[in-house]
Amino acid sequence: MREKVKIAFVGIGSRGSGLLKLLAAMTDVQIVGVCDLYQDRVDAGLQSLKELGYKKLPQGTTDYRRLLEVPGVQAVVTPSSWTSHAKIMIDAMEHGLYVATEVGGATSIEQCWELVRTSKRTGMPCMLLENCCYGRNEMTVLNMVKQGLFGELVHAEGGYRHDLREEVCKGKENRHYRLVNYSHRNGDVYPTHDLGPIAKYLGINRGNRMVSLTAMASKSVGLNEWNRRERGSEHPLSNYKFTLGDVVTTNIKCAHGETITLFHDTSLPRPYSRANLLQGTKGIWQEDKQGVYFLDRSPKPHEWEKIEDYYAEYEHPLWKFYQDAGVRGGHGGMDYLVLRGFVEAVKHRTQTPIDVYDTAAWMSITTLSEDSINLGSMPVAIPDFTDGAWIDREPPLTGPYSLDDWNLKGLKAY
Amino acid sequence: MREKVKIAFVGIGSRGSGLLKLLAAMTDVQIVGVCDLYQDRVDAGLQSLKELGYKKLPQGTTDYRRLLEVPGVQAVVTPSSWTSHAKIMIDAMEHGLYVATEVGGATSIEQCWELVRTSKRTGMPCMLLENCCYGRNEMTVLNMVKQGLFGELVHAEGGYRHDLREEVCKGKENRHYRLVNYSHRNGDVYPTHDLGPIAKYLGINRGNRMVSLTAMASKSVGLNEWNRRERGSEHPLSNYKFTLGDVVTTNIKCAHGETITLFHDTSLPRPYSRANLLQGTKGIWQEDKQGVYFLDRSPKPHEWEKIEDYYAEYEHPLWKFYQDAGVRGGHGGMDYLVLRGFVEAVKHRTQTPIDVYDTAAWMSITTLSEDSINLGSMPVAIPDFTDGAWIDREPPLTGPYSLDDWNLKGLKAY
Repeated sequence: MREKVKIAFVGIGSRGSGLLKLLAAMTDVQIVGVCDLYQDRVDAGLQSLKELGYKKLPQGTTDYRRLLEVPGVQAVVTPSSWTSHAKIMIDAMEHGLYVATEVGGATSIEQCWELVRTSKRTGMPCMLLENCCYGRNEMTVLNMVKQGLFGELVHAEGGYRHDLREEVCKGKENRHYRLVNYSHRNGDVYPTHDLGPIAKYLGINRGNRMVSLTAMASKSVGLNEWNRRERGSEHPLSNYKFTLGDVVTTNIKCAHGETITLFHDTSLPRPYSRANLLQGTKGIWQEDKQGVYFLDRSPKPHEWEKIEDYYAEYEHPLWKFYQDAGVRGGHGGMDYLVLRGFVEAVKHRTQTPIDVYDTAAWMSITTLSEDSINLGSMPVAIPDFTDGAWIDREPPLTGPYSLDDWNLKGLKAY
Repeated sequence: MREKVKIAFVGIGSRGSGLLKLLAAMTDVQIVGVCDLYQDRVDAGLQSLKELGYKKLPQGTTDYRRLLEVPGVQAVVTPSSWTSHAKIMIDAMEHGLYVATEVGGATSIEQCWELVRTSKRTGMPCMLLENCCYGRNEMTVLNMVKQGLFGELVHAEGGYRHDLREEVCKGKENRHYRLVNYSHRNGDVYPTHDLGPIAKYLGINRGNRMVSLTAMASKSVGLNEWNRRERGSEHPLSNYKFTLGDVVTTNIKCAHGETITLFHDTSLPRPYSRANLLQGTKGIWQEDKQGVYFLDRSPKPHEWEKIEDYYAEYEHPLWKFYQDAGVRGGHGGMDYLVLRGFVEAVKHRTQTPIDVYDTAAWMSITTLSEDSINLGSMPVAIPDFTDGAWIDREPPLTGPYSLDDWNLKGLKAY
């Protein structure tokens, strides 16, 4: 039997504990250590492993640095908080380890550069675990883009439009870091669920790049309202002046003239949507319609068709394989796929399907949108984290779980 | 029998000819003159009147100034081009006439001020015929806003998302002014179908106002593509460098911290949408879902309900009346209602339901978005065309076809 991929796991909050179970259940993965700042979460993590059949439990610790020294460890997966994961990623790379992080925005441009700098110096890949890049619709649309159904791409939209009022307001009780971020920052603090798939459609960092943005924030009233309703007007959060606007809108311009509009919208009552939309000279996709329309295909002018009707022909090859193998894991299977993308890269010592340039560029939108808002919606430049490499870096990343190119040879579900 | 309302009609293109018929068919309206720059359209206009039973045909002319002198004329309705209507409006007011214009954006801020200045000096109302303010869904939502279903309003979106590639590209053949505007300008050239209803929701110019905006334009490739497909690559428009970006996104900030995002999107293939969306602390409406969700009403958390299911309870009183009287006219009845709003104001010598401040503010977004785009998406200030009157101008416009307040006493369909 081949060696298992040895992974240290850091950050076992509600998101982390789900990812840990999913990862630990893979038959080619061995969790060699778990860490959280809180001992009760460490214990819960170890308990999960026990339930998954681990006979000898690995090290559990509240100091992640100890895990970087575990003999044989190859990679770190870190769903830790938005303000702690960058340091963990950098330390992991410094120790010669692959690293993958749960999503979240950057706290500074310097942080993004430090990720890039460290990855280049150490040669270690650094991957944002952007599960939405692996969504079924997003991958179908990506496949359609590559096959030319949209013609020349022109405009895209997306959003993280999710009523999180309770999760945010109960941040002290559930130890969720959104509360402190919403309390002090104003920008698109969580841009990558919407931006990640769009960046893949548009070939960002591979012959295209994001060049500038403006951002605008609405007033902040939704969280106060939730608190008043649920906990009364005397509760401190009922009157706290949250800095984060309830809806933050960011417009991004790309090198080839494409525009991207992103909405961060988590403090008002609403049904969930990632509001994904893509327009080209020959077609359009809109998530909120679950609809597509293609000049060369759609039978009736100006009328939507259902994207489901295109699955048979345009489903991404990886998703076809996955449907046959049996969809598993959270969020409709995306979590499993994105983790596999990372694990396969570690196993084969290849680049990760979302690389350090993607990670830095996508995360940077948070701090750049804060800058723009703080400057009264002034346009701000988006750094080129590839330092010019995007210009002739068109060949896509490869590998069995790659988003850019797919080679399913030897693909197996673990 | 009471005197009829005497109206001169200027601009009989494809839009104008429809409005002329609708207006002339009203039993309390008399068309006292028709004008267009092209004699064939003048003739067609007169022919329409003949077919509607006019025994003595009014004056037909290619010089609108002659109509301002017609004895007894009370008002001018002008669906003329985007670059000609402002002068016609100003001249009409100078002659002591009410004036209403088909929608379109401004060509300069000075033009907006001149409308306001002239209206104030002459005491004559000036109304943008923004039919979408009278859309059934838009009016239902306005009614819900007034009744508090949305709580405090926070964010709105809208768009003019309409595949007009053929109409624009055939501008020389069909004498449509879009072609020349798209050839030379870059901004949201047609913002009011989306902005008008939103401005009414948000109380713009009545205790609220739009304070600043940024705009961003995508590349321009859609019209070239249409031409190449339909008329071959040798056609001049297949290679003309249109200045107008295919998708122009404008973000507007309001005095009370609300944000508005507008999309101008008419050069790419897509089904039609005005993309209306409204979010408050207690509810949301989204046109593309035909859906609403209200904290205090919706049975299932995070799940859309159909707006149709709310018509019985929340339909705007004017629309209830209208349904009973028999919906008529183009665009689902909106055209009739907006024209009635104007005719009733002329008849009763009251303010128009969309006044000169609304007209100036909404039209100004075009030229301000051009400015922002030309400055690399810099934020630009939006003038206060009320010159401070918005601060204590909360009492709404009144009258039977008013959008702000409704008094259906004596309301009759003509």
